Amino acid sequence: MSGLNKIVECVPNFSEGRDLKKIEKIVDSFRGKKGVKLLDYSNDEDHNRCVVTVVGEPEELKKAVVEAIGTAIEVIDMNVHEGQHPRMGATDVVPFIPIRNVTMQEAVDLSKEVAKEVSEKYNLPIFLYEKSASSKERENLSKVRKGQFEGMKEKLKQPEWKPDFGPDEIHPTAGVTAIGARMPLIAYNVNLNTSDLEIANKIAKKVRHIGGGLRFCKAMGVELKDRGITQVSMNLTDYTKTTIYSAFELIRIEAKRYGVSIVGSEVIGLVPMAALIDCAEYYLGIEDFSIDQVLEAKL
Amino acid sequence: MSGLNKIVECVPNFSEGRDLKKIEKIVDSFRGKKGVKLLDYSNDEDHNRCVVTVVGEPEELKKAVVEAIGTAIEVIDMNVHEGQHPRMGATDVVPFIPIRNVTMQEAVDLSKEVAKEVSEKYNLPIFLYEKSASSKERENLSKVRKGQFEGMKEKLKQPEWKPDFGPDEIHPTAGVTAIGARMPLIAYNVNLNTSDLEIANKIAKKVRHIGGGLRFCKAMGVELKDRGITQVSMNLTDYTKTTIYSAFELIRIEAKRYGVSIVGSEVIGLVPMAALIDCAEYYLGIEDFSIDQVLEAKL
Repeated sequence: MSGLNKIVECVPNFSEGRDLKKIEKIVDSFRGKKGVKLLDYSNDEDHNRCVVTVVGEPEELKKAVVEAIGTAIEVIDMNVHEGQHPRMGATDVVPFIPIRNVTMQEAVDLSKEVAKEVSEKYNLPIFLYEKSASSKERENLSKVRKGQFEGMKEKLKQPEWKPDFGPDEIHPTAGVTAIGARMPLIAYNVNLNTSDLEIANKIAKKVRHIGGGLRFCKAMGVELKDRGITQVSMNLTDYTKTTIYSAFELIRIEAKRYGVSIVGSEVIGLVPMAALIDCAEYYLGIEDFSIDQVLEAKL
Repeated sequence: MSGLNKIVECVPNFSEGRDLKKIEKIVDSFRGKKGVKLLDYSNDEDHNRCVVTVVGEPEELKKAVVEAIGTAIEVIDMNVHEGQHPRMGATDVVPFIPIRNVTMQEAVDLSKEVAKEVSEKYNLPIFLYEKSASSKERENLSKVRKGQFEGMKEKLKQPEWKPDFGPDEIHPTAGVTAIGARMPLIAYNVNLNTSDLEIANKIAKKVRHIGGGLRFCKAMGVELKDRGITQVSMNLTDYTKTTIYSAFELIRIEAKRYGVSIVGSEVIGLVPMAALIDCAEYYLGIEDFSIDQVLEAKL
């Protein structure tokens, strides 16, 4: 994948976490395809759900995702599905994430193209969500999914829950799918030298958006019992606007109130290169840096 | 280029900086080849020299470099070459730099394979230098190249300057070539809020290796006249051992002696992703981070 190519990430969630044969059949749609790369997939038996992480060039990725949604319809029957995780469809949710040389608008357009194609091809009702949502009420996935598969039949009869694409009734075995575009999400935790969860929670409340803190930050206090410390556990939902270093520094400043210090931090899972390089730029006061100067960005 | 592939960088220097037709002919060896990507090339008329930056998978890169050295022999006659930059051959120097999934030893092995192949194919004498050097005296390129093209005929007659590969006499028109492996070099400058060049030089002396400073740091003071400030201009020759942040912090500490502060810093040209991410890890105190968590490292 050359540095000039457009790269989009997709993290589709399928409602099958137990039957490995079925899971492999779905995941096969992302294997051996030019311009598409399967990065990871994992299934959870309790959730009865499988999460796939794949990157690719928009057109090639689209084809693979459409194929996978078709396979999920073939192998999954939501009428007999049970699991701990909320879900409404065989393919439950399909987020597209702009990674390289791709704008959010292009990711939104891609999500709509996929929505249109699968609705027509499989007669599947689709809700657009997040940045692709057709109204404020449909942005939040948990609101869209409320009622789950079992409640969707009635929900779709309400005029305000008419699907964005496809028929006005659920697919008999595959239910409803949410498709949309969002920014990459960064799971970032800051560890504190206190075992007092209340302090961690107070700091979390100050740092997160709903408490008056950073716009694209969700946060909560968490105990790390084995280490005898606590942490502020965060999701940064748009690192281009709410940076890792601003979350870190704000926690440092709030912690000071309680005589508490930061002992370290953790990045969980994948993180876009630019989110970390931005921090190096900040702390080193690097002037006029361009991401094109990063050797790997040219590969 | 997949995340699993081995990637090596090569920055060959050719002794032609004026005749664009000849330059294009040499550079053509790096175009349109699978597994090889031309990142940059630039020629300097005063130096009468052209520097190419190319990355690729080891085997493919080797073939392209061997071809380019052959073309340089065809189009360049060192007997009529003149320019400001020291040089000893049509292809003057060929460094190989490990970038991804490649050890320094593999880069050394690759440099020796190229040395052997071009010495046999073109009857060209080769000195191995830097990490590939066969003795301490041959590590430093300026010592190897001392005497330049005009002096090489006599130099090669000395037993201690017997080439590592190829004949014991110069190629009549292409001279001698140095081939070796080295770490990526980072050009990093730290700007100071003083116009006093003497202070910048004093700080540079403390930070650099020969002054008792950091092992893989070369440094000098430089005036930025238009901004009325000075800077410590550095080459970091092994960022895995001498980090960007340690150079930055050491300058900050030394500058304090003179009541001087850092106003910013600059990264010049290309920089490996890991060198900057290392700084983010340091300043954010990130625990247990792996470069595999960087999304782009997986592409």
